[in-house]
Amino acid sequence: MHPSLLQDSVRGCPKEIPHNEKLLSLKYESLDYDNSENQLFLEEERRMSFLGFKCLEISRWVICGLIGFLTGLIACCIDIAVENLAGVKYYVVKQNIEKFTEVGGLSISLILWAVLNSAFVMLGAVIVAFFEPGAAGSGIPQIKCYLNGVKIPRVVRLKTLVVKVCGVICSVAGGLAVGKEGPMIHSGAVVAAGVSQGRSTSLKKDFKIFEYFRRDTEKRDFVSAGAAAGVSAAFGAPVGGVLFSLEEGASFWNQMLTWRIFFASMISTFTLNFFLSIYNNKPGDLSSPGLINFGRFESDVSVCLLLSSPKPCGLLGALFNILNYWLTIFRIRYVHRPCLQVMEAMLVAAVTATVSFAMIYFSNDCQPLGPDQSEDYPLQLFCADGEYNSMATAFFNTPERSVRSLFHNPPGRLFYNPLTLSLFTLTYFFLACWTYGLTVSAGVFIPSLLIGAHRTLARLVSIMFVCRSLSQVWAVPGKYAFNGSCRGIVRMTLSLTVIMVEATGNVTYGLPIMLVLLTAKIVGDYFVEGLYDIHIKLQSVPFLHLEAPATSHWLTAREVMGAPVTCFNRIEKVGTIVDVLSNTSTNHNLGKICGLILRSQLIVLLKHKVRELARSRLTQRKLQLKDFRDAYPRFPPIQSIHVSQDERECMMDLTEFMNPTPYTVPQETSLPRVFKLFRALGLRHLVVVDSENRVVGLVTRKDLARYHLGKHGLEEMQLAQT
Amino acid sequence: MHPSLLQDSVRGCPKEIPHNEKLLSLKYESLDYDNSENQLFLEEERRMSFLGFKCLEISRWVICGLIGFLTGLIACCIDIAVENLAGVKYYVVKQNIEKFTEVGGLSISLILWAVLNSAFVMLGAVIVAFFEPGAAGSGIPQIKCYLNGVKIPRVVRLKTLVVKVCGVICSVAGGLAVGKEGPMIHSGAVVAAGVSQGRSTSLKKDFKIFEYFRRDTEKRDFVSAGAAAGVSAAFGAPVGGVLFSLEEGASFWNQMLTWRIFFASMISTFTLNFFLSIYNNKPGDLSSPGLINFGRFESDVSVCLLLSSPKPCGLLGALFNILNYWLTIFRIRYVHRPCLQVMEAMLVAAVTATVSFAMIYFSNDCQPLGPDQSEDYPLQLFCADGEYNSMATAFFNTPERSVRSLFHNPPGRLFYNPLTLSLFTLTYFFLACWTYGLTVSAGVFIPSLLIGAHRTLARLVSIMFVCRSLSQVWAVPGKYAFNGSCRGIVRMTLSLTVIMVEATGNVTYGLPIMLVLLTAKIVGDYFVEGLYDIHIKLQSVPFLHLEAPATSHWLTAREVMGAPVTCFNRIEKVGTIVDVLSNTSTNHNLGKICGLILRSQLIVLLKHKVRELARSRLTQRKLQLKDFRDAYPRFPPIQSIHVSQDERECMMDLTEFMNPTPYTVPQETSLPRVFKLFRALGLRHLVVVDSENRVVGLVTRKDLARYHLGKHGLEEMQLAQT
Repeated sequence: MHPSLLQDSVRGCPKEIPHNEKLLSLKYESLDYDNSENQLFLEEERRMSFLGFKCLEISRWVICGLIGFLTGLIACCIDIAVENLAGVKYYVVKQNIEKFTEVGGLSISLILWAVLNSAFVMLGAVIVAFFEPGAAGSGIPQIKCYLNGVKIPRVVRLKTLVVKVCGVICSVAGGLAVGKEGPMIHSGAVVAAGVSQGRSTSLKKDFKIFEYFRRDTEKRDFVSAGAAAGVSAAFGAPVGGVLFSLEEGASFWNQMLTWRIFFASMISTFTLNFFLSIYNNKPGDLSSPGLINFGRFESDVSVCLLLSSPKPCGLLGALFNILNYWLTIFRIRYVHRPCLQVMEAMLVAAVTATVSFAMIYFSNDCQPLGPDQSEDYPLQLFCADGEYNSMATAFFNTPERSVRSLFHNPPGRLFYNPLTLSLFTLTYFFLACWTYGLTVSAGVFIPSLLIGAHRTLARLVSIMFVCRSLSQVWAVPGKYAFNGSCRGIVRMTLSLTVIMVEATGNVTYGLPIMLVLLTAKIVGDYFVEGLYDIHIKLQSVPFLHLEAPATSHWLTAREVMGAPVTCFNRIEKVGTIVDVLSNTSTNHNLGKICGLILRSQLIVLLKHKVRELARSRLTQRKLQLKDFRDAYPRFPPIQSIHVSQDERECMMDLTEFMNPTPYTVPQETSLPRVFKLFRALGLRHLVVVDSENRVVGLVTRKDLARYHLGKHGLEEMQLAQT
Repeated sequence: MHPSLLQDSVRGCPKEIPHNEKLLSLKYESLDYDNSENQLFLEEERRMSFLGFKCLEISRWVICGLIGFLTGLIACCIDIAVENLAGVKYYVVKQNIEKFTEVGGLSISLILWAVLNSAFVMLGAVIVAFFEPGAAGSGIPQIKCYLNGVKIPRVVRLKTLVVKVCGVICSVAGGLAVGKEGPMIHSGAVVAAGVSQGRSTSLKKDFKIFEYFRRDTEKRDFVSAGAAAGVSAAFGAPVGGVLFSLEEGASFWNQMLTWRIFFASMISTFTLNFFLSIYNNKPGDLSSPGLINFGRFESDVSVCLLLSSPKPCGLLGALFNILNYWLTIFRIRYVHRPCLQVMEAMLVAAVTATVSFAMIYFSNDCQPLGPDQSEDYPLQLFCADGEYNSMATAFFNTPERSVRSLFHNPPGRLFYNPLTLSLFTLTYFFLACWTYGLTVSAGVFIPSLLIGAHRTLARLVSIMFVCRSLSQVWAVPGKYAFNGSCRGIVRMTLSLTVIMVEATGNVTYGLPIMLVLLTAKIVGDYFVEGLYDIHIKLQSVPFLHLEAPATSHWLTAREVMGAPVTCFNRIEKVGTIVDVLSNTSTNHNLGKICGLILRSQLIVLLKHKVRELARSRLTQRKLQLKDFRDAYPRFPPIQSIHVSQDERECMMDLTEFMNPTPYTVPQETSLPRVFKLFRALGLRHLVVVDSENRVVGLVTRKDLARYHLGKHGLEEMQLAQT
């Protein structure tokens, strides 16, 4: 008996359980990083000449170039739009404030500011909540999951991209405590998924190019490149982009792929740089490689650098994450209607404006205006002529500009006094915490940088009496601020170090930055996971970490696998297949394994063959690989295929379409070993066989993701259909 | 019948064939990146608590820190030693030349110079040729092979390290056209292999620590870190180091491992920086992160950058490689006796000195001495007072200093005229080509940089009339020189780009550097492989590239595997095992696979059990994993184990010691699929089974490395015992 296997091993029905992070959702499918090497595939590969492979390779490079170019362009558009919108907004409000400072009635200014903010944010929230909820947030958790191999629905659609871009412009212009860097990564990924497929399903347009790349393996490679290009455009850090992609995604290292990713990143940062230079009327200057630009730090490190101790930063990060975790739970439970979500976003926008205004209003920290007029929107308020309110530098500004002004206050001079800094940190901390997770498209990188930087700076100032002998501390406060940037929140440690090093353009900072990040990570991990991981967990995504839990050698494939497995004979009755696919019957033969066939393949088969089968049994039109590619990635549901009673009796030969050499493991294999094989090859299914080579079970992503190290050793999560 | 498999599948004896690159040597064994998960191993892992795993993780970090520190220290020692020795040499020669310039008789100076050079080089060549031939060359090809998974004999021994360090000091001080960067990578790797094992077999000293790490899997991870630390110390490029390790070695990406590699790199560059700063009496300055330091380039890129066209550079690189290839063939055939090798090295040293002297003597390119006296050893010779011979800047200097002076001639002023540059390039090209492959310890990075830089600069100067309108070309000639650096020779493209970007500390150069490197690589690859690859091929090393040849879908596991396989029963007679291991008999049962056992494991088993077996059958002392670790990595040969006739009749139970769940593939699996599994998991053996789960063959590294894409499609290499 020669059965083949079906994609979904039918299990006992899990019952509906209230939402919590101890669940694993079954609604997410896996991407398949392993080619289904069936006869059709092998025939195509064998027909292809060496020249054909060369051409493919060249197309890959061209696509990566395009991805980089388009991502850079999008970053450029976002930057210009945000600058202009925010510029107009701050100009109007500033005029208004100046008008009313003299005559009294600043509450009108406050209302104006709050209304302007809310209007922007409302626009952003409406498109996200009503048109494409997948565009909410920074998109980094979603891309992490995608690169990890989880198929998140609608994450790489064109519509998501459009909503994301408009959304992020609105939220940043609306003065929320957010950054525009995170969304760039998502945008890059969408661009990559679109360009590489040579068609848009949303626009119903097929360019008939790049058809070879229409499968998970190739698409995922390009999405890695897109994400890297996004990082690169956001931070001006091409190497950081490559490392981000690798850290999150490609467990199987491929030199040529890495090269292409690097190429896309380079093109992306170059494009952004080029167009921004032109926009700024300085063509050829090329001084803005990324959306955020820390400027150049001089090489002058002292031992005192290490003073900006990362431990409290880790604690602060942990607190941020815990608060945000509770908030997210609350939102999942009570704020799930789009109207409510939009209203919450508007509320946050209004509160942000109010708090900022109050902080500026009650602050009496006046600083003299610098000779170079480096302030963007200096607010005089109640300060003397020639001075300005320093709290306004932090609050009356886009977050990027706050960061830059903070890192680059001229040596020897402190813009801020410790009180201002502490107050700002505290307020901004809660605002950012409230903001992250709103139904708007926005990132958390810049806010976390701001919080960390301010906290560190405040601390530095307060310890200046201790450290006075080290005169450099005074000379370069910005540097310390930078170093303390509170990375306890996000914890993408490796790529982040590189991003920071690249963004500052100075290798010497590497070691201190790394030590700070590492300590922050260790301290933070002790309390709670990283922000992105929390959000991934709350979505119940079956995320595979890089290694099996350390103490999981006790478990074997037999214990983790799903069984029994649905099996077909090599030549099977159409009726049986349809019934099994419709979940109305199950089919558990026990026989030697002869291959693996996917649900999607069976559906394409049924769709194309049913008619012909009815006419003459077993003399079929030759199905091409192209038929499978055309259906990718949105395969029709089984319900859409109508099979008559006659057709149900036909026999279908699966030999050509199944993968005859799926990877298998014996039942006694330990979990870490199964895990390693699964992860290294990016598998979606791993067949478990007994010593007679009979199929006894199937290991899928969910079976592996279920086990994790909790406080009390190895824990097992439950599965839920939601 | 339940057989287990033996490591060496005995094949038909290959006959001895003359040395050429179409051969694959059988003398190299593979490293095993896959743990042998036998009962002993699983028991140990299961006994270990979560805390135990934490401790292991901490030790790994400590070891990486140590590796970084020691590597940095070694780099520091090399740098200081070379500076001082070369300083003394050039001082003596300069005094001598100045003395004889007036009175005539410069030939005495020439002789002095040549003798000094030869003396240094002789010392370096003698220790390499007579004590440790494995320390010859840059060591990068060897480390590439090691990271690829090939066990190169003696490559990570302490003795190799000592000879390598002394050797490189001698060769650089001896004025050869070599760099001291390559050997650092090898040194780092040796340090890592030593530190991580917690013992030195050479010194017969066992510290009884880190015993858990005594296996290929862990050791190879640490060697990756060591190599990265070496790159980092050599170029001040920690990220480049990480990428080098990944590009060359770790096909299985592991986040924590990468973090540790990065940590080691950071520590290494920091240590070097720190100690060099102290040595230079500028503690806290930290301005020399690497052995080579290009200094800082200002951000000012113009489109004209791309003029430094990489195509001729690729051609030049190809020519270099072809010449060196012929030379190496010649050396393998005729210069294989140590005495001859030492003599050749001395000859090259003397010729280098003579040619340099001649070039300086006949050059009449005088330049005024700069106001800042930036020249290290300005030679006046026949120039007017206040001027110096500019050819001497290039030749009368260590290669590192030549590079630096070339890249950093002050803007608007050209040290060199085109003729000088062209002559230097030509001479240096042939000298470097002759030098690489000598029996001395030395690298090829700096020479290739010098050749490329000079060539580009010369070309730039000659095209200045065309490009005059772009005034920047004149302002920053060093930049163009840098960009053109002739990377056609080596072609480690990705990590090199990053190394270059890091070394210049400027992201903006990324894209042009990458484009130049890429074009050079494509042009070069069209003619001949990279220099390191050539040398690896000439050693007949079974090197696995990252992917199977594109057109190899025709081949299946059945065709590439080695068969028949030596099999044992689960409980086997000692005599049979000894006979098979001694190659005096073969054993080909056909039965269901039940596990995989290695030759080394059998040898340890025999060694420990033979005595006890003799006393009482099947009641054995419990063998520990420790016994296997103690024997690692120098397992005794089978000949050293004496088995009496009585003992031969005993039965040995292999169940506990074999890996019961080896990875298997069906016979019909295509070569690319086999290759992917093998490479992704870093396997050493892959068992091929039929549909009944019976062993039919074994795929090893050599079976996969045999196939490569030649000029006429897929080619198969022959196997040779040498």
